[in-house]
Amino acid sequence: MSRAIDSDSLKPLIAPRSVAVLGASADPQRIGGRTLRYLRDGGFAGPIFPINPNRSEVQGLRAYPSLGETPTPPDCVIVAVPAPMVVEEVRAAAERGVRGFCIFTAGFAEVGDEGRRWQDELVAIGRRTGARMLGPNCLGLFNTRLNFIATFSGSIEHGRPKPGRLAVVSQSGAYGSHLFVLARDKGLGVNYWLTTGNECDVDVADLIAFFVDDPSTDVIAAYSEGIRDRDRLIDALGRARAARKPVIVMKVGSSAVGASAAASHTASLAGSDAVYDAAFRQFGAYRAETTEEMLDVAYAATRRIYPTAGRLGIVTISGGAGVLMSDAAEKHGLDVAPMPEDAQRRLKEMMPFAATRNPVDTTGQFFNDMSIVTRYLRVMLTEGNYDAIVCFVTSIPRSPGVGEKLRAALRDATQGLSDRLLVLSMVAPKEIVESYEAEGYLAFEDPTRAVAAVGALTKIGRAMAVDASAAPPTPPASALPIPTGTLGEAEAKRTLASAGVPTVAERLARSADEAIAAAATLGYPITLKVASPDIPHKTEIGGVLLDLGDPDAVARGHATLVERVRRQRPGARLDGILVAPMVAGGAEAIVGVHRDPAFGPVVMFGLGGIFVEVLKDVTFRVAPFAVDEARRMIREIRGFPLLDGARGRPKLDIEALAECLSRLSVFAVINAERYRSIDINPLIVLPKGVVAVDALIET
Amino acid sequence: MSRAIDSDSLKPLIAPRSVAVLGASADPQRIGGRTLRYLRDGGFAGPIFPINPNRSEVQGLRAYPSLGETPTPPDCVIVAVPAPMVVEEVRAAAERGVRGFCIFTAGFAEVGDEGRRWQDELVAIGRRTGARMLGPNCLGLFNTRLNFIATFSGSIEHGRPKPGRLAVVSQSGAYGSHLFVLARDKGLGVNYWLTTGNECDVDVADLIAFFVDDPSTDVIAAYSEGIRDRDRLIDALGRARAARKPVIVMKVGSSAVGASAAASHTASLAGSDAVYDAAFRQFGAYRAETTEEMLDVAYAATRRIYPTAGRLGIVTISGGAGVLMSDAAEKHGLDVAPMPEDAQRRLKEMMPFAATRNPVDTTGQFFNDMSIVTRYLRVMLTEGNYDAIVCFVTSIPRSPGVGEKLRAALRDATQGLSDRLLVLSMVAPKEIVESYEAEGYLAFEDPTRAVAAVGALTKIGRAMAVDASAAPPTPPASALPIPTGTLGEAEAKRTLASAGVPTVAERLARSADEAIAAAATLGYPITLKVASPDIPHKTEIGGVLLDLGDPDAVARGHATLVERVRRQRPGARLDGILVAPMVAGGAEAIVGVHRDPAFGPVVMFGLGGIFVEVLKDVTFRVAPFAVDEARRMIREIRGFPLLDGARGRPKLDIEALAECLSRLSVFAVINAERYRSIDINPLIVLPKGVVAVDALIET
Repeated sequence: MSRAIDSDSLKPLIAPRSVAVLGASADPQRIGGRTLRYLRDGGFAGPIFPINPNRSEVQGLRAYPSLGETPTPPDCVIVAVPAPMVVEEVRAAAERGVRGFCIFTAGFAEVGDEGRRWQDELVAIGRRTGARMLGPNCLGLFNTRLNFIATFSGSIEHGRPKPGRLAVVSQSGAYGSHLFVLARDKGLGVNYWLTTGNECDVDVADLIAFFVDDPSTDVIAAYSEGIRDRDRLIDALGRARAARKPVIVMKVGSSAVGASAAASHTASLAGSDAVYDAAFRQFGAYRAETTEEMLDVAYAATRRIYPTAGRLGIVTISGGAGVLMSDAAEKHGLDVAPMPEDAQRRLKEMMPFAATRNPVDTTGQFFNDMSIVTRYLRVMLTEGNYDAIVCFVTSIPRSPGVGEKLRAALRDATQGLSDRLLVLSMVAPKEIVESYEAEGYLAFEDPTRAVAAVGALTKIGRAMAVDASAAPPTPPASALPIPTGTLGEAEAKRTLASAGVPTVAERLARSADEAIAAAATLGYPITLKVASPDIPHKTEIGGVLLDLGDPDAVARGHATLVERVRRQRPGARLDGILVAPMVAGGAEAIVGVHRDPAFGPVVMFGLGGIFVEVLKDVTFRVAPFAVDEARRMIREIRGFPLLDGARGRPKLDIEALAECLSRLSVFAVINAERYRSIDINPLIVLPKGVVAVDALIET
Repeated sequence: MSRAIDSDSLKPLIAPRSVAVLGASADPQRIGGRTLRYLRDGGFAGPIFPINPNRSEVQGLRAYPSLGETPTPPDCVIVAVPAPMVVEEVRAAAERGVRGFCIFTAGFAEVGDEGRRWQDELVAIGRRTGARMLGPNCLGLFNTRLNFIATFSGSIEHGRPKPGRLAVVSQSGAYGSHLFVLARDKGLGVNYWLTTGNECDVDVADLIAFFVDDPSTDVIAAYSEGIRDRDRLIDALGRARAARKPVIVMKVGSSAVGASAAASHTASLAGSDAVYDAAFRQFGAYRAETTEEMLDVAYAATRRIYPTAGRLGIVTISGGAGVLMSDAAEKHGLDVAPMPEDAQRRLKEMMPFAATRNPVDTTGQFFNDMSIVTRYLRVMLTEGNYDAIVCFVTSIPRSPGVGEKLRAALRDATQGLSDRLLVLSMVAPKEIVESYEAEGYLAFEDPTRAVAAVGALTKIGRAMAVDASAAPPTPPASALPIPTGTLGEAEAKRTLASAGVPTVAERLARSADEAIAAAATLGYPITLKVASPDIPHKTEIGGVLLDLGDPDAVARGHATLVERVRRQRPGARLDGILVAPMVAGGAEAIVGVHRDPAFGPVVMFGLGGIFVEVLKDVTFRVAPFAVDEARRMIREIRGFPLLDGARGRPKLDIEALAECLSRLSVFAVINAERYRSIDINPLIVLPKGVVAVDALIET
C-alpha cells in the first residue's frame, strides 16, 4: 500500500535547525571526518553536534559521546557509523524525537539478507515514529540556501554550490555528484541536491513533491534507476504539472545490458523501459536521454517560459548555421514558420541580399552596420509571432569592439520584450556568457543544442497545457468481474463486452447443424473457431477457419475443427465451435494489458501484422486513463496514418478506438489481481466503430 | 565534365612561399587591413607584399602600387578589392605567373547575373592559366604549420590556431570560423582551415584530396551545403578511404526549410538529403549531424585507432553511469559483451560486491584501495578482448590526493598497452584534461558522448574495412539501350531483361483467343494488363486484372480491359493485352532509379505497401555499384527482417536481389541521358530469385 506524500515531514531532514554527525571523525579524510568538515566549513547557522565516544572535541567543535547526550535532540542526524550499529542508533534517536536521518552507511539491502533485514527495521522505525530517512547507502544532500552541506562527496571540494532555481535528486550518489559538478561548472545554481541511495524511505517521488511545495525551486531534475511506488510518483508528477514546475527525469536502463546492470546494482525493479517512457509522457515529465540534455533543459527552464505553439524564429549571420538550425528545428518538432510577407518586404528594403523568410540571414553586412541586427530582430520579435528566437552570433560577443556593439544592438531590439524566449548560440569565455545571461538571454555554444532546448521547453509547455483533470470513464453497471479459472475465448469476450469493449456477435454451436443455423442468422461469410478453455492458442492446431461462404463449407469446416481437436489435443474439453461473421474492411489493431513490475496494469496498443511483429511499433499507457489520453496514445504510433486515411484509405473511427482503450484501462484496474494478461488480437478498427474479434484473458 | 583532382596545383595557394595582399589597408579594422595584420603578426616566413596604390608603406611593410610591380610574382595573392576590379586584377596576375588566389570579395554568383558573369570569367582564367582560386565570397584560409594566416575572420584575434592532426574545410565562412573557435577552445590542433565560399574553382572535394596527400594530416572535417561535382567528391572520398584518413562531413539541409534556406544562400543544388546520406555511407565518409558530434569524432579520431568489432568494455565507479553507458552503447551499435567467466570469477574474489560482468563497477571501494582500479582495468584490457574501454571517473582526477593516485593506478593498468583505445569520462579543468590526453587517453565530460565517440570510430573502422575494389558487374553483351520515345510496360521490361533484370514471362495478346492461348501456355492463374504506350499508369483506369483462373475469366477480362481503354482513354494506342502468370509467394519490393541533381543516377530500394507509402522506409545508392554494396543497401531498410525470414517467414533470395540492384545500377549509368526515371513496382523477391512484375521507364 502506498504511503501518502507528506512534504512537511521532510523538513527536519532537508531544512534542519540543528544537526548531529554520528561517527564524526577527527581525520578529515575519513567519511565521518570529511562530512563534518564540509558541514562546518559550509557555514550552517544552527548548532552542529559531532558524536564521538572517544573525544570531547572534534575538528574544533565540542563533541558528545552519544546521540542521547546532545543538549537538545537535533532535527537531523547524519549517520556515518558501520552498518551493524545503525539500527540501534537510529531507533534510540528516533525515540528521543529526532525526525530526520541521512544514512551514508552501505551494507543494507544492496548486499544481502542480513542487510535487507536491517533495512526493514529502519523502515519499521520510521513508520512507528514518523522519522524520515534518506538512504541508507547514499551520498547525502545539501540545501544551498541554508548552507546545509551533508555529504562526503569530494565534488564539493573544488567548488561550492551557488543558490539558483534548480533542485537535483539522484538515486545514484556518484552520478548525482557528476550532475552537480557539471551544473556548477556550467554556472547553474542548485538549491537542493539529494541522493536517495537504497530509498528505504525517502524516494525520488517524495522529493519531487517537496520541491513542488518549495517556493525557491522552479525546475526539478531527477535521476532514477527504477520506481518503487507508482502511486506516489504519479501523485508527485501531477502536483508538479499543476504547479507548472517541469520535472526533467533521467531513467537509465533502456538497453538489455543496461537494464540487467541496473537490477544488479540496486534493488529496483527495472520495469520495461518503453513503459517508463510512456508513463513519463502520460504524467507530464520530460525524459532526458543524456546528462547533457538534462542540464541543457534544466538550464533553459530557469527562464520559466514554456511555449506551446512551437514557432521558432532563427536569426543568423551565417547561412550555413541557419540551415543547420532549421534541420534541428524539424527534428525537434518546431515550426520554422515564415515571416509575414509585409515584414519581409520591409526587411528586404533595408538590405536586398538578406534572406528574410526565416531563417533570417543578416549576412556579414551587420559588421558594417550593427543597426541591421536591431531592426531585423525587432521586426521578428514584434511581427513574427514566434514563441522563441534563436540568434546565431558565434564568437562575435567576445570580439573587441564589435562585441559591445552587438550587445547594444540586441538590447535595443529587445527593449520592453523581456518576457520573450531569446536564445543566443555563442562561443565566449564564461564571464561574457554570464553577462548575457544576466540580461535574460539563454546561451548555448552549439546551435543544435540551442534549438533542441527550445524544442524541449515546447514539449514541456505542451505537457503543462494538457488538461489532466479528465477522469477515466465509469465502468458500466453491467460490468462483470473476470471469472476465476481458465477462460475460453467466448467468456473472455463476454467479460470484455460487459465492460464496454465492443465484440463481434457470435454463437457457440454444439453441432454442425447448430453452426449452419448460426451462420444463417449471422450472415455469410463466416468464421469458425474452436472453443476450448484448454486451447488458448487456437492457431497452433489450425483451430480457426476463415471466410466460409455457404452451409456446405460450414458443415465441412465444423467436422475439420472437431477432428483437429480430437487428434491434436485429445484430452481437451471442447465447448463447441464458435460461429462469427467475418468483419470486412478497417485495420487490425492489437490491444493488450499486462502487469508491469513498476507501474502495474499497463495498456498496450499497436497495429497488427508487421507493425507489431517486425517494427515493434507499439505504445503504452498506465491504467486507468481518460479518453483524452487514449487519443494521444493512438497518435504516437508510427503507423497512425493508416488509421487516419493515409494514401486514399478510409478514415477509421479513432474516437471509438480511444473510448475502447480507455474503457479497457478501467477494466484492467478494477480487475486488478484477477488476470496475468489480456490480449485483444485483432481489434478491428472500422470506419464506424471498433470490434474485438478475438480475445484471450490469462488468469 | 569533371575536372580531375590535382593536389600539387594547390600548393601555391595553401603552402605559398610569398604572398601579396591586394587591397592592403593601413586601417587594421578594414578587411584588407585586418588581413595584412593577421598575416604579418602570424609569423609567415616568406615575403609579404601589400598592394596599395596610395602608400609606399602599409602597417610597417613596404607596399607596392600594383601586383605587377612586386619584386617577384608572389605564389599567392589575397584579393580584397571591390568586385568590379577583381577579374582584371586576377587576369593580369595570373598572366604574370601567379598560381594561387584567395578571393575574399563578395558580389559574385551569389548576388545575380553580373556577378555570375564575373565568376565565370574567373573560372575561364583559371582554366587557361592553371591558377587555382579559393572563393570568391570566402573567409580565406590558414596553414598553421607555415604560420600562413590568410583570413579576416576575427576569430583569430582571441586565440591563434595550434598545429595538430586535423584539417578543416568549410563552404561557409562564418560557420567555418565557429568550427575553428570551438576546436581551438577544446584544445584541438588544426593544421589547415579553409573556407571555400562560392567554390568557383577549389571545392571541398579538392581539399579533401589535398589533405589525403598531406602527411601532417590524419583527420579531415568538412562542412558542406551542397556538392557540385560528384565525380570529384567520389574520387576524393575514395582516396581518403584508401589512405585510412577519416572524412567527417556535415551536410546541412535535411529539413524542407533547411534545404530551401541552403538553396537561397548559396548557388548549390541541395539534392535530396536522403541521397546525400546514402552517398556518404557508400563512399565511406562519416556524416555528423551536429557541430558537437563533428568535433567529438574529429577529436577521437586523432588517436588513429579505428576498431571494427565494436566490443565495448565499461568500467565505472557508479552503477548508474554504467547503466547509462550501456544504454548509449546499444544506441550506437556497440556490444557491451560480458567478460570471460574465468576473469569474472577472479575479479569477484578481489571484491565480492563488485559487478564484474560488464559494465564492471568497482563501487566506491576504490577510494580505499586504488589497486582495485589497476587490477580490474588490467584484467579487462588483457582478457576482455574489447576494442575500447570507457572509464567513468567523473571529477576524481581533480580531487586533491585521490586524483594523483587514480592517475598512477591507470598508468599501471595500461602499461605496455598504449595502442588501446582508452576513453575517460571525466570532468576537470583543462590543464588536468590535457595532462591525461598527453598520456594517450581520450577525455569526454559526458559519458554518453564518450560512448558515442567509440561508436563513431567503429563506424569509421568498418567503413575503412569495406573492400571498395569490387567492380560493378559488366553489362551483358545482349543489353539493349533504352529506346527513344514513350515506352510501354512490355518494352520497358524487355529492355531491363536484356540488362540482366529478371522479368516475368508474359505474352502480348491481340485478341481474347490469343490471351486464352497465352494463358494456357503460361499456366493459370494469370494476370491481364493493358499494354499501351499512352497509359503509363494502368491502375488509374483499372487496367490490371489479377488472379484469373480459367479461359472464361480470361475472355471476360480481355473484353473488360479493352472496353475500359476505349471509354476512359479514347485516343490511346492499344498494343494489346499483356498476359502474365501470377507470381505467388515472396515479398514485394519497389526499385527505382532517378536522376539526383547532385549525384546523377541513383538507385532506390524499399519494400512495397506501407513500407514505402507510410513509413518511407527506403534507401539509396549512387549508381553504379557492385553486388557487395547492394547487399549492404538491402540490409539498411527497417523492413529487412521481412526478407530475412522474420517470424517464421521463408528466407528470401537476398543474393538475387543484390545482383538485380547492382545490374540495374549499371544499366542506369550506361543509359545515362536516355530516361528521367525507372520504376520497377513490384519487384517480387522470391525464396529463389527475383522477378520484375511491372516496370515503367519515363523517357
